[in-house]
Amino acid sequence: MEPAISTGGRFVIEAEEAEALAKEAGVTAVRELVPLLVPAAKLMARPPISRFSVGAVGLGANGRIFVGVNVEFPGLPLHHSVHAEQFVVANAAAHGESAILYIAVSAFPCGHCRQFLQEIRGAGEIQILVTSDADPAFRPLSSLLPHPFGPHDLLPKGAPRLLEPHKNDLGGLDRNGGGGGGDLGQRMREAAKAAARASHAPYSGCAAGFSVADGKERVYAGSYVESAAYNPSLGPVQAAMIACLAAGGGGEGEVVGKGIVEAVLVEKEAAAVSHESTARIFLAAVSPAARLEVFRFESSAAE
Amino acid sequence: MEPAISTGGRFVIEAEEAEALAKEAGVTAVRELVPLLVPAAKLMARPPISRFSVGAVGLGANGRIFVGVNVEFPGLPLHHSVHAEQFVVANAAAHGESAILYIAVSAFPCGHCRQFLQEIRGAGEIQILVTSDADPAFRPLSSLLPHPFGPHDLLPKGAPRLLEPHKNDLGGLDRNGGGGGGDLGQRMREAAKAAARASHAPYSGCAAGFSVADGKERVYAGSYVESAAYNPSLGPVQAAMIACLAAGGGGEGEVVGKGIVEAVLVEKEAAAVSHESTARIFLAAVSPAARLEVFRFESSAAE
Ligand SMILES: [Zn+2]
Ligand SMILES: [Zn+2]
Repeated sequence: MEPAISTGGRFVIEAEEAEALAKEAGVTAVRELVPLLVPAAKLMARPPISRFSVGAVGLGANGRIFVGVNVEFPGLPLHHSVHAEQFVVANAAAHGESAILYIAVSAFPCGHCRQFLQEIRGAGEIQILVTSDADPAFRPLSSLLPHPFGPHDLLPKGAPRLLEPHKNDLGGLDRNGGGGGGDLGQRMREAAKAAARASHAPYSGCAAGFSVADGKERVYAGSYVESAAYNPSLGPVQAAMIACLAAGGGGEGEVVGKGIVEAVLVEKEAAAVSHESTARIFLAAVSPAARLEVFRFESSAAE
Repeated sequence: MEPAISTGGRFVIEAEEAEALAKEAGVTAVRELVPLLVPAAKLMARPPISRFSVGAVGLGANGRIFVGVNVEFPGLPLHHSVHAEQFVVANAAAHGESAILYIAVSAFPCGHCRQFLQEIRGAGEIQILVTSDADPAFRPLSSLLPHPFGPHDLLPKGAPRLLEPHKNDLGGLDRNGGGGGGDLGQRMREAAKAAARASHAPYSGCAAGFSVADGKERVYAGSYVESAAYNPSLGPVQAAMIACLAAGGGGEGEVVGKGIVEAVLVEKEAAAVSHESTARIFLAAVSPAARLEVFRFESSAAE
């Protein structure tokens, strides 16, 4: 069954079109459109392990809509999974969105997601609506995670939070591993470097970025996002898979990333938090023929 | 500074001694002793990345006390970390405890832990006290994670929850990988098998157990514990590290697991959730000389 209101398979809807869609749906505000898009979002989920699809839709401060779904990767531990709410936030961050005001989601957010959202300044005020709730209404995140542990416990007040500009200094970027030149190699390195610069890693200081290319030389990249609570952090590999799916590069099968042929990781030299071995086992499970190149930087200056 | 009431470095305190300690501390109930042990618990934390020590103390239904601390592993992604509340629960599970009634902890539990705790039947009623709170008092977990997502959303009512008996059928256990016989090998295999049998993996059906031995041939094992929300699951490697530290085998340095010389993983054949590659990169980061043997079983019968 087609959901009443379609996103046309897209994961980002510009403000003007969101307003047009709201009018079409007969609602007076885009805020009211957000829950109506959840069924369409849910159809784009990629949960080959759980078969439990989750869709989430976020509204940014400037009227853009960001769609998110859950994504799972068979053969690996479950901490490789991406939740729909994390997808919304990483998707918004990748598109330079400065704030998420509303999120509608098909099931009550789990504790992992309630914690991950704390990385956004003023997280408690984000309005959450659960479409499967008996009485669906926007309620503040603070009502779902009272007395939160979060960035306020660990970071200086002015330190940039998730969705605020990050410009990590990568210092001298050393080449490690061979080959891989040409235009594609260059584009992948630049994409992974830009992602590392935008990474939110204030707790470990270990910014990281990951880029992948598919057989059509399309490049997708994602930034590592740390959580104050450590475990809910979103790895750079997962962030790149979000970017891939969001940009229409998720392929036909149920496993996102199957078509990856090349990958580039940019991370800190001798990092306390390193993603290299994890990226290797991810690729081995998801796209075994893919080649990985790793570039390391020395600076620890994270902003 | 020595904390007022010491646990003597132990992670399990039997009921009789807990009562004696309560008397010594001048409190009328063991429940009131629980928060008083948190400072001592905190001193046993192993957080080489964050340097942010967390201590937690749980009281079981039969009066036993279970101590937990946070544990971090440098060089790996942060999802390898163990939180103090998870430690308490895995520690209790490993000792056959049937219920945790009270938990006192040094900082507000993160969303990841509030979610992990949902695996226990009646989780909402577990009483949580935060010693750093302005007004420390036991309050139900349901007040910290209202409208939880959890096992009730996914499992049949009667399915065993965490802390309830699990007897996963390992079917025929196939040998994979060579060598490693003798008494130590035998003990490690049996320990990992017993841990896999006790594993709580109702969502994927992929029970798993992990055992390690140190240079003194002391063997420690842990059971994989799944979370309904997937990402907060506790890997079998982490569970074994909890067992190791809890039994006094954590070594002198800050990194638990440094002294591992042998390891055995027992998991399902062609598992949708496999821990083998993750166990390998864990060992490579924490104790590079350690040898890993993997045994696989075919049955998917999980109880
Ligand atoms: Zn979630
Ligand atoms: Zn926690």
